[in-house]
Amino acid sequence: MNIKPLGDRVVIKKIEAEETTKSGIVLPGTAKEKPQMAEVVAVGPGGIVEGKEVAMQVKVGDKVIFSKYAGTEVKFDEVEYTILKQDDLLAVVE
Amino acid sequence: MNIKPLGDRVVIKKIEAEETTKSGIVLPGTAKEKPQMAEVVAVGPGGIVEGKEVAMQVKVGDKVIFSKYAGTEVKFDEVEYTILKQDDLLAVVE
Amino acid sequence: MNIKPLGDRVVIKKIEAEETTKSGIVLPGTAKEKPQMAEVVAVGPGGIVEGKEVAMQVKVGDKVIFSKYAGTEVKFDEVEYTILKQDDLLAVVE
Amino acid sequence: MNIKPLGDRVVIKKIEAEETTKSGIVLPGTAKEKPQMAEVVAVGPGGIVEGKEVAMQVKVGDKVIFSKYAGTEVKFDEVEYTILKQDDLLAVVE
Amino acid sequence: MNIKPLGDRVVIKKIEAEETTKSGIVLPGTAKEKPQMAEVVAVGPGGIVEGKEVAMQVKVGDKVIFSKYAGTEVKFDEVEYTILKQDDLLAVVE
Amino acid sequence: MNIKPLGDRVVIKKIEAEETTKSGIVLPGTAKEKPQMAEVVAVGPGGIVEGKEVAMQVKVGDKVIFSKYAGTEVKFDEVEYTILKQDDLLAVVE
Amino acid sequence: MNIKPLGDRVVIKKIEAEETTKSGIVLPGTAKEKPQMAEVVAVGPGGIVEGKEVAMQVKVGDKVIFSKYAGTEVKFDEVEYTILKQDDLLAVVE
Repeated sequence: MNIKPLGDRVVIKKIEAEETTKSGIVLPGTAKEKPQMAEVVAVGPGGIVEGKEVAMQVKVGDKVIFSKYAGTEVKFDEVEYTILKQDDLLAVVE
Repeated sequence: MNIKPLGDRVVIKKIEAEETTKSGIVLPGTAKEKPQMAEVVAVGPGGIVEGKEVAMQVKVGDKVIFSKYAGTEVKFDEVEYTILKQDDLLAVVE
Repeated sequence: MNIKPLGDRVVIKKIEAEETTKSGIVLPGTAKEKPQMAEVVAVGPGGIVEGKEVAMQVKVGDKVIFSKYAGTEVKFDEVEYTILKQDDLLAVVE
Repeated sequence: MNIKPLGDRVVIKKIEAEETTKSGIVLPGTAKEKPQMAEVVAVGPGGIVEGKEVAMQVKVGDKVIFSKYAGTEVKFDEVEYTILKQDDLLAVVE
Repeated sequence: MNIKPLGDRVVIKKIEAEETTKSGIVLPGTAKEKPQMAEVVAVGPGGIVEGKEVAMQVKVGDKVIFSKYAGTEVKFDEVEYTILKQDDLLAVVE
Repeated sequence: MNIKPLGDRVVIKKIEAEETTKSGIVLPGTAKEKPQMAEVVAVGPGGIVEGKEVAMQVKVGDKVIFSKYAGTEVKFDEVEYTILKQDDLLAVVE
Repeated sequence: MNIKPLGDRVVIKKIEAEETTKSGIVLPGTAKEKPQMAEVVAVGPGGIVEGKEVAMQVKVGDKVIFSKYAGTEVKFDEVEYTILKQDDLLAVVE
């Protein structure tokens, strides 16, 4: 993929419910922030963002939980991605 | 458990009312922020969060009081967890 | 008591109206922020809170005036406490 | 008086309209922030407040103009006081 | 006049429309912020205000344009003044 | 002109639509922020504004694009000007 | 083009849907922030913006994804441009 996020943004690709079930995680539909699982496909350079030093803590391939409503969705070569700020990622799942 | 929270987030597991009663703490249902007790099951690395140094003050196994409406709920291997910022924890109970 | 507040939070126990009258202070019910008197029963460590150095200025046993709507109420061994940020305390009464 | 305000707070006692008239100041009832005159009866220590250095610029006995809606009112030994932040004081009148 | 504004506040006295016309400036009644002309009658000491260094850039006698809705009005010896923050002054007119 | 803007403010004079057309720029009436062209007629000193160092980047005579709703309008010697913060200027047109 | 954006602003020219399709990217009309592709045609100098150091990370010719509602639209020599802050750019596409 050739989308390079700016600043402290990351590009993620949602993991389908089927895959989610296999890994043993079920995310409840009623949660108020609607968390979802995704795989990180691109990571911005971090550095000074809005005057503050930001170190990127995730890397390509990480499986992450994020808030569904965060970020902006784009479709690229028929695949949907979400571009969001690293701070909208809640956790890495291993 | 293999959820690794990012930044200053922690993962907690709510302690059921029965256990709460045993430990002598009763949390009133009418409190406006609805505090609850939980056990810390994972702690983020802290460090620079939104440009500010954050030192993690809780550790895995701590029993904590938190605001019910804070954070995001996820279900993992049939167990429900909440991911929230350390600042949404009010106190440690010993 | 074994509730240890985190960061710049304190745990206080409200002083009943009777005691209040004895000490000569009457807090009007019509005040818009509804101040109340309380005794400090636990004090957080202070330190870096939200990236800012906070020095704790109250100690266990201090009688304080606070805003009624601040903080979170918890019941412990049949006694009600309030957990709030030190900045929600207005004054110490001696 | 033995109310010791915390941080950058001050305790003031309103000056009655009669006294106000004598000193030659009349504060219009229609002003949108309703300023009033008061005498400073206690001054907090200042220092680091919300992470910022605050130097106290008023002293006990100063006559000040403040915004009526600022602060919290308390009654002590049958006298009403207001506890507010120094920044809610507009000016010292000499 | 003996009103000493605190911090970065200034005390101004509005210039009547007649005087305004003489100096060649007409301020439109339909402007959304309703600017007005005034003369500076007292200037606060500046210094650290809300944790930031403020240098006072106006002096007593300056004619200034300010936003009508800014600040607090007080009447002193039958004269009306406005107390506002220096940042609510838009420009000095010479 | 003798209006001296304070801080990081500038005084601009709108360029009429006719002139705008000559220079080849047409600003659409439907744009949500309604940008307009203007000429800079006075520039504040910059320096520390709200605790932050501001360097002035425009000079008298610059043609600028600005947001129509920003700033305050004043009429001086029958000419209308707008006083606004430099940050409300979007670009310089050469 | 002779529009020189100020501070951390950039001037972009939207890429038509046809071009977008050729490059293999389709941006869904239902996305809540309506991202779009554009080409960067001018880049501000960066430097200290609102008191914070901003380094410009895009250059003229970069293809970028941005939020449709960000910025201000201007028409210049019959071509429409958008002036926005660099932080409103989400990613560079290569």
